[in-house]
Amino acid sequence: MASVDVPVALLGYGTVGASVARFLQDSGDDIERATGHRLRIVRALVRDPDKPRDFPVDGELTTSFEEILDDPSIALVAEVMGGVEPTGEYVLDLLRAGKPVVTANKQLVAQRGAELFETARAAGVQLRFEASVCAAIPVIKVLRESLVVTHVHRVLGIVNGTTNFILSQMEAGADYAEALAEAQARGYAEADPSDDVKGADAAAKMAILATVAFGSRVTLADVDYQGIEGITPMHVAAARDMDMVVRLVGAATLVDGKLDVRVRPSLVDKQHPLAAVAGPFNAVMLQGDAIREITLEGPGAGGIETASAVVADMVSVIGTTGTGFLQNDACWRSFERLPPGELRSPYYVHIDVEDRPGVLAHIAKRLAAHEVSVARLVQTQIPGGAALHIVLHEAPEGQVKAALAEIVLPETLARPSAFPVISDRGVTELGWA
Amino acid sequence: MASVDVPVALLGYGTVGASVARFLQDSGDDIERATGHRLRIVRALVRDPDKPRDFPVDGELTTSFEEILDDPSIALVAEVMGGVEPTGEYVLDLLRAGKPVVTANKQLVAQRGAELFETARAAGVQLRFEASVCAAIPVIKVLRESLVVTHVHRVLGIVNGTTNFILSQMEAGADYAEALAEAQARGYAEADPSDDVKGADAAAKMAILATVAFGSRVTLADVDYQGIEGITPMHVAAARDMDMVVRLVGAATLVDGKLDVRVRPSLVDKQHPLAAVAGPFNAVMLQGDAIREITLEGPGAGGIETASAVVADMVSVIGTTGTGFLQNDACWRSFERLPPGELRSPYYVHIDVEDRPGVLAHIAKRLAAHEVSVARLVQTQIPGGAALHIVLHEAPEGQVKAALAEIVLPETLARPSAFPVISDRGVTELGWA
Repeated sequence: MASVDVPVALLGYGTVGASVARFLQDSGDDIERATGHRLRIVRALVRDPDKPRDFPVDGELTTSFEEILDDPSIALVAEVMGGVEPTGEYVLDLLRAGKPVVTANKQLVAQRGAELFETARAAGVQLRFEASVCAAIPVIKVLRESLVVTHVHRVLGIVNGTTNFILSQMEAGADYAEALAEAQARGYAEADPSDDVKGADAAAKMAILATVAFGSRVTLADVDYQGIEGITPMHVAAARDMDMVVRLVGAATLVDGKLDVRVRPSLVDKQHPLAAVAGPFNAVMLQGDAIREITLEGPGAGGIETASAVVADMVSVIGTTGTGFLQNDACWRSFERLPPGELRSPYYVHIDVEDRPGVLAHIAKRLAAHEVSVARLVQTQIPGGAALHIVLHEAPEGQVKAALAEIVLPETLARPSAFPVISDRGVTELGWA
Repeated sequence: MASVDVPVALLGYGTVGASVARFLQDSGDDIERATGHRLRIVRALVRDPDKPRDFPVDGELTTSFEEILDDPSIALVAEVMGGVEPTGEYVLDLLRAGKPVVTANKQLVAQRGAELFETARAAGVQLRFEASVCAAIPVIKVLRESLVVTHVHRVLGIVNGTTNFILSQMEAGADYAEALAEAQARGYAEADPSDDVKGADAAAKMAILATVAFGSRVTLADVDYQGIEGITPMHVAAARDMDMVVRLVGAATLVDGKLDVRVRPSLVDKQHPLAAVAGPFNAVMLQGDAIREITLEGPGAGGIETASAVVADMVSVIGTTGTGFLQNDACWRSFERLPPGELRSPYYVHIDVEDRPGVLAHIAKRLAAHEVSVARLVQTQIPGGAALHIVLHEAPEGQVKAALAEIVLPETLARPSAFPVISDRGVTELGWA
């Protein structure tokens, strides 16, 4: 095959950028077999060209964005510099100039997606963003290219490796502080882990996934999220006793043309595919009509994994250039948000109470008054009272919350906590009605 | 967007064909958003055009293959008729005529892949075959497009839904005959279930997956397979006692430039993602350097699921036409086969023996003589003797077999059985050496 060089550029040359450069060099033959072309980095935008680097770039390091923007030979740009500003302006300029862009930037896509995709559409070029969610797990490609005729109605995801590692450590016996320290020691958690443990990182990823899955724009502000800071060894033990595990689960659901996107610590049945996701791994389950459900699991972070997704996107851009493929914004309609209280789910509720006659009867009565019924109840002794672990049958969140609000009694020792339970596979028989 | 009709044809109009037609009609807007085009079936090859059909085709039913081959307007053909002859000749003729083909035909790809892909390459058109393996699970697209720069060294798959359903039923308490009858009653197993339960169906799929994953042709004849007919409730119970489940697992492994592809009943640790694959579902785990491992799970069969994969392939062909993308045979090198005895694995061994002094010592000695060491041993009482359930540390299959061959004693009550154990995640730290 005649090898044709395709000049490309990088915005940024850190860990991911250097790995992209290395893949383009080491896997040049693989890329040529797939596309008929060799991709060659001619320029990479950096702050300091003189900084020593482990893997030198093929082309030239530059501090001038214009040298990339104004070079007509550059056919494709990969954005691996991170940040929202000035990155967003750079990407917009490149798209306007007719250059397709591949980005690994979750915050950029989550915060400025509408503008970026509209600009790409208007310019008739692609903006691919596989690496912005779950690194090497090809969930965006699968959603956009494999599930073209599937109407996805639910996306369940373990999309934050840090919290999944912490919860896995807690399952193995650590308390929250120990597990967090171990995650930091291994480099899975930042010194300030807030973004991960409070659920904001997972929420941004779920916003991107929901947008692509439902074709309706979802921003971070639309995602109702809660992190894992309140999870105690008692929750983990209670889950285990019920053959479940605690996971931080993002759930995007389409209910009668209204969408709900949330992130919650959840109890996941051990039979469910998401329960097997251990350590820093991620997984996304897509449920829809033509496919029932497909689950993708893999490493959700890491420089090499992210770079491999960036290169795959670059290859896909080259392989589809000029065909009109995927040049529309994945977002093409607009769904209202489901009032948060209306989302139905089974719930696990934990209430510490004084061990006195009548307490259980009171709780059962309040639940019943809100038409919430109990599927399982386990009572264990704790110092000074009893811990009630209750699994409720599926009910609208609003009714569960209303019932719990009325349960606050002199006899309760702490605020009740409630987490969704994920046990159903959501699999139904297929067929056209 | 200007809607441009792309005339397409189907070979076959049975369950899958009618579902393809329905998707092209019902999801025309989705397809146009993705590709800029509407796909319109102008002709479908059938045996009997007058047979009543649930979903009538848009275009014309014909018994003449030439009406499709010779129609220059037809831009793409989906082969959903099944069989190897005359299907193979039809597909070859279409490719030679410059028409890209999408096929759902596992036997055709497994048996005539070399010729078909060489013909497609020479003609410069695509032959896509996602639906030929695991129906709606997009494992071929992920391997070819997302893992471009990953060197896959191992593929583990539960790729036969019938046997997975049977094994799931046995886990729930059924014996083999009951589980098979239930699978037949639900339509998961044929009246003659041989192809599934003996492992031949899984072997054909593993041949296709190994070919794509390793880039080296693997045919059915290269796959060493064994089915589930020998699995008894005792094996299922022994697995459960060790926190494992019995699954029919296909394993394609690349060891020092030699490949091994086999299908075996295996004991899978409950922590392993493949253990969570229940009922008629399929899953494929891809292990490689840049991605560590990615697991895809979903429905591995079904008319609608298969049709959704066929349409996704059609969309991908339209979206990449003229770019040179994926026009090479996925197979581009040739690996020798690893001598079967050299593949290393932990093993589970089951031996029924008379309960006499010295028997265990003899067995332990034979294992030790072949440098096979015992990780776990559980002895249970059975009528007339004892059942030994032994888990061996990883060892070459040849040594395990040699040791077992020497264990046949007057005291053994039946031939020992041995199945691989799958427990490691195969995940290693990444990085360039």
